[in-house]
Amino acid sequence: MIIVLKKGTEQKDIDNLLKKVKSLGLKPMVSQGQERTIIGVIGPEDVIRFQPLEAYPGVDKVMPVLAPYKLVSREFKQQDSVVKVKDSLEFGSEKINIVAGPCSIETKAQLQEIAGKIKDSGASLIRGGAFKPRTSPYSFQGLGEEGLKILQDVSNQFGIAAVTEVMDTRDVELVARYADVLQIGARNMQNFNLLKEVGQTKKPIILKRGLSATVKELLMSAEYILSEGNFNVILCERGIRTFSEFTRNTLDISAVPVIKMCSHLPVIVDPSHAAGKWGLVNPLSKAAVAAGADGLLVEVHPNPKEALSDGPQQLLPENFAILMKELKQVAESVGREL
Amino acid sequence: MIIVLKKGTEQKDIDNLLKKVKSLGLKPMVSQGQERTIIGVIGPEDVIRFQPLEAYPGVDKVMPVLAPYKLVSREFKQQDSVVKVKDSLEFGSEKINIVAGPCSIETKAQLQEIAGKIKDSGASLIRGGAFKPRTSPYSFQGLGEEGLKILQDVSNQFGIAAVTEVMDTRDVELVARYADVLQIGARNMQNFNLLKEVGQTKKPIILKRGLSATVKELLMSAEYILSEGNFNVILCERGIRTFSEFTRNTLDISAVPVIKMCSHLPVIVDPSHAAGKWGLVNPLSKAAVAAGADGLLVEVHPNPKEALSDGPQQLLPENFAILMKELKQVAESVGREL
Amino acid sequence: MIIVLKKGTEQKDIDNLLKKVKSLGLKPMVSQGQERTIIGVIGPEDVIRFQPLEAYPGVDKVMPVLAPYKLVSREFKQQDSVVKVKDSLEFGSEKINIVAGPCSIETKAQLQEIAGKIKDSGASLIRGGAFKPRTSPYSFQGLGEEGLKILQDVSNQFGIAAVTEVMDTRDVELVARYADVLQIGARNMQNFNLLKEVGQTKKPIILKRGLSATVKELLMSAEYILSEGNFNVILCERGIRTFSEFTRNTLDISAVPVIKMCSHLPVIVDPSHAAGKWGLVNPLSKAAVAAGADGLLVEVHPNPKEALSDGPQQLLPENFAILMKELKQVAESVGREL
Amino acid sequence: MIIVLKKGTEQKDIDNLLKKVKSLGLKPMVSQGQERTIIGVIGPEDVIRFQPLEAYPGVDKVMPVLAPYKLVSREFKQQDSVVKVKDSLEFGSEKINIVAGPCSIETKAQLQEIAGKIKDSGASLIRGGAFKPRTSPYSFQGLGEEGLKILQDVSNQFGIAAVTEVMDTRDVELVARYADVLQIGARNMQNFNLLKEVGQTKKPIILKRGLSATVKELLMSAEYILSEGNFNVILCERGIRTFSEFTRNTLDISAVPVIKMCSHLPVIVDPSHAAGKWGLVNPLSKAAVAAGADGLLVEVHPNPKEALSDGPQQLLPENFAILMKELKQVAESVGREL
Repeated sequence: MIIVLKKGTEQKDIDNLLKKVKSLGLKPMVSQGQERTIIGVIGPEDVIRFQPLEAYPGVDKVMPVLAPYKLVSREFKQQDSVVKVKDSLEFGSEKINIVAGPCSIETKAQLQEIAGKIKDSGASLIRGGAFKPRTSPYSFQGLGEEGLKILQDVSNQFGIAAVTEVMDTRDVELVARYADVLQIGARNMQNFNLLKEVGQTKKPIILKRGLSATVKELLMSAEYILSEGNFNVILCERGIRTFSEFTRNTLDISAVPVIKMCSHLPVIVDPSHAAGKWGLVNPLSKAAVAAGADGLLVEVHPNPKEALSDGPQQLLPENFAILMKELKQVAESVGREL
Repeated sequence: MIIVLKKGTEQKDIDNLLKKVKSLGLKPMVSQGQERTIIGVIGPEDVIRFQPLEAYPGVDKVMPVLAPYKLVSREFKQQDSVVKVKDSLEFGSEKINIVAGPCSIETKAQLQEIAGKIKDSGASLIRGGAFKPRTSPYSFQGLGEEGLKILQDVSNQFGIAAVTEVMDTRDVELVARYADVLQIGARNMQNFNLLKEVGQTKKPIILKRGLSATVKELLMSAEYILSEGNFNVILCERGIRTFSEFTRNTLDISAVPVIKMCSHLPVIVDPSHAAGKWGLVNPLSKAAVAAGADGLLVEVHPNPKEALSDGPQQLLPENFAILMKELKQVAESVGREL
Repeated sequence: MIIVLKKGTEQKDIDNLLKKVKSLGLKPMVSQGQERTIIGVIGPEDVIRFQPLEAYPGVDKVMPVLAPYKLVSREFKQQDSVVKVKDSLEFGSEKINIVAGPCSIETKAQLQEIAGKIKDSGASLIRGGAFKPRTSPYSFQGLGEEGLKILQDVSNQFGIAAVTEVMDTRDVELVARYADVLQIGARNMQNFNLLKEVGQTKKPIILKRGLSATVKELLMSAEYILSEGNFNVILCERGIRTFSEFTRNTLDISAVPVIKMCSHLPVIVDPSHAAGKWGLVNPLSKAAVAAGADGLLVEVHPNPKEALSDGPQQLLPENFAILMKELKQVAESVGREL
Repeated sequence: MIIVLKKGTEQKDIDNLLKKVKSLGLKPMVSQGQERTIIGVIGPEDVIRFQPLEAYPGVDKVMPVLAPYKLVSREFKQQDSVVKVKDSLEFGSEKINIVAGPCSIETKAQLQEIAGKIKDSGASLIRGGAFKPRTSPYSFQGLGEEGLKILQDVSNQFGIAAVTEVMDTRDVELVARYADVLQIGARNMQNFNLLKEVGQTKKPIILKRGLSATVKELLMSAEYILSEGNFNVILCERGIRTFSEFTRNTLDISAVPVIKMCSHLPVIVDPSHAAGKWGLVNPLSKAAVAAGADGLLVEVHPNPKEALSDGPQQLLPENFAILMKELKQVAESVGREL
């Protein structure tokens, strides 16, 4: 931690600060510059991180030196983490896993049709929403437990793992009973109580980045889950909110290598929500894999024109099949398997 | 709703669309332009709003004509709503109400000291967090129910209404037992289940705008609360996330008159979270009142240097007293009372 | 300047860095923390600011301690600067000056009509574009020198100072011959050659903040002008680009007090371009004055429906008259004159 | 163009609008909805685009139906444009071209060293700045004409085409004498006079997207160049400004397929400026090629630690060689050559 003082700070204010730093068991080192005085603080940075030193007279700014996350950081664990879903299905190893399926679970027949097709094309997991976070109270809100049952049945029938979102602390136990992987949606990335609840399960968690969350905040939210004892976290970049028009959100492709630098956790990309238009899902999927993503989350629907949610961004199964074929080439070009 | 077709769309695709529109009980009106064909849709827009028409072949874009919110809109209710907290305390009438207090409730003595001082300066409500949403799992998380009890005691002792945040669907009933006004924080603006829960109480709700929420999304979240039967909603602008440095967030001052144009609900401003620096709270508070805000949410702490959270942005009680004195002039200059 | 090293940096890399720092005539101070080593650099920060130290092996990040601007900074000059336009007309003293007028100069009759009306309402300067930066090559591009002549004639006739934009290094001399104040538009804030050219005139310069410029970058652009010898710079906040809809740009009201903290230069606000809608100009103007602005730039047009540019955001003269009357109250409430 | 009226607009205001529309030679079509009236306008949209219809009483919003650009649009020209630089060197065909070189031209020896190495690795063009847009007036500003001479000599010696930036309308002729391709930097994307000047040359132009420019604005700026008769425009995505930290800017990878959908012009990507860190250039380059880019602009420097500008983001020649080898695989995986 480095404390930069304002020009002309009085000695008594400096002394006050030094006293405070020492009272925390830390060692201050004062450097008198030509224009400013700065104080380096030696010792465990966490002790001082949450102290409001900027409120002291004379302090211009406080600059942390270390990242605020611990368990999720590369410094804590050098090797890539591998998150196992079941049997030989795992995220973070050589194989890139594709999660595909409809935005919402609508009927059993619908999900069976999709499951068969995406499995044939090479997807390893099926996704589908039973509880849907919708901007409008008048939009379709999902089938609830009925949807979870359909998801589990179809998952068992086709031997394809099931991913679904949990939105409410009260539903964690319920959802965990039916799904193989729990998803925390972008709007809940900083629903800290929900993070703690899923941290107490042993399930793999897909944690989606919030629309306006920095990478650091995403990692801090993952830290909530790991700090409860659940290390099975898969991070997901799904587009951030910017001024850029044409796409629903702006896919922050750099987040993939940046997260790999800062953390040992696997990273996947959701091109469907980032783009908001099915026509962009193919090139963005290839970009994600080329940039090093460990997986993708792709919306697929047999009849997007009649979908109960997110119609415009869902791929037809035949376009998904083409994508998978082309993606295989890209994966191999960067030394991965699909 | 207006549907713009791509150049060169085939007649059979147009016919398909027209069939779909009619099947919904709506009336399509086709205009053949020189370059494009457009279809105007007559009838209740809601019927068609959630149909994925963009997934139809030939459709370039779909442009809604009406706002998606109903109950919160100016069109639904022309006159300004007045939200009554208790007795003569209400938001949205001539008097501007100031909510002040610490970020977190720390001890009873602390809260009593603040309550006395802010009441003397003219605040009508005291705020203080018992459940705190913190980016880091290692930060102080609030006193919980113990904090709520302190808040209620101090509120009763000083005759000043109590505002506090609720973060979890499971806590709504508990918090509603102790507080006069429930606050939904920025990070929970789209925690839809929480919105529904507070919509089922009769308590006044302060709904804070999310860091990356548009005004339309803020109004849609308010719509969730109103649609459950609770019309006592006070909207709060608290800064949005932009590239701009120096301030923690960027206060979107235009949101105040924009919300007044679109909605009948009262609007308040939180300059403390927007700025993140106490030195900016005074000018931003004046700007908010000059722009038409119905109230302010200001963080005040007797000793920000030792605060357990948000130290740098909390005002000292003596600076709050100065602010209130100066603000009175600004309020009167725009025909309001403080 | 503080250099933070990566965990586990080898001694030879540290030695290399220290050698480099000493070779620049600076003094390094090494602090061995528990987890990281940091190097404080003592001496004139400018020497090292432009050295690519982040390219050295082992360097994690380089954190500057001082602001990169000099002449524009509060540290360089403690008292507020007053920029004199002519006679008793100056920016930065007690009186708030209002610049008003049409987006584009269209005809002499148009400008005369406006000049008479805005002067009656209390404006001290008239603005009008002769060279117009337009997004589309097919939009009206301004009258050029013909427009400048009209502006000067009307300025002389009504005894009201003239402000107009210069867009091209080749036109600086020409525009300076006709106008009292030169304006650098938002799109040219980082047209560094243009900044140097206007820095070589003695004219007062209104420098508008770019759509995506930080306050620091705005100050650096002002530094270009001052470093050429022209200290008559008036900074202008005119809205930044964010995701927020409804308004054309987002007025960053905090920029007013922030600039006042960092710099001695006067600051004005352009609510018309920020909002893009005339109905918001009144509340935003009041907010700007309440927050401490030294002036405003307001678009006024006698017939916005027929304006050749920016119709929707221009005030009618009668609405401008109302604004000025109401604004006088707000100015007085914060101890200023209008 | 579609005009949406406010609820309750009076008939005389509607009549006024209809009169205006007809006076422009266009045909209005009125649709009386249940809640709102809308007017569709038939005829060439350009006639009405620049009319301030939003300033008419009763008008709620005006929604254009067509894109405002013409010559750059896919609708104007269906097939991909190929921009020829010289001989067999062209952008937009099967081969992906890599432009590499230092941020600034420093000495002839430096540029010769780089030219030899990047050519060996497979680059087809060399870049280097002679006129540098720098945020600070105290930073190195480039060698000027001396630098241009070095660039041309080295280009001739190694048989590798030369790309350099032009910043000032007064320098266009000079720079065009020395370089094969002129670059318009991000900060000048809306320097409309500069766009017109380069539009009057016949040189290929690399037009970089501004930090806060939408894709539509980028296309409008290209339209300025094409409308002067120069169709040799290569668009360049180089990162936009967002809240996201870690990277200097946020690479908007979706812009590549989006531009391909809207325009026939070739698109390249600059991963160096987007990331600001050389360690991210490799994955972002691969992502760009996978997403469909026609080329890359990569900063390479033999000794980034001593570079006079942009040190941290420049690749060492040996890392560039590795990138080119790996990139070849990715290019082939999407059916392109490198």
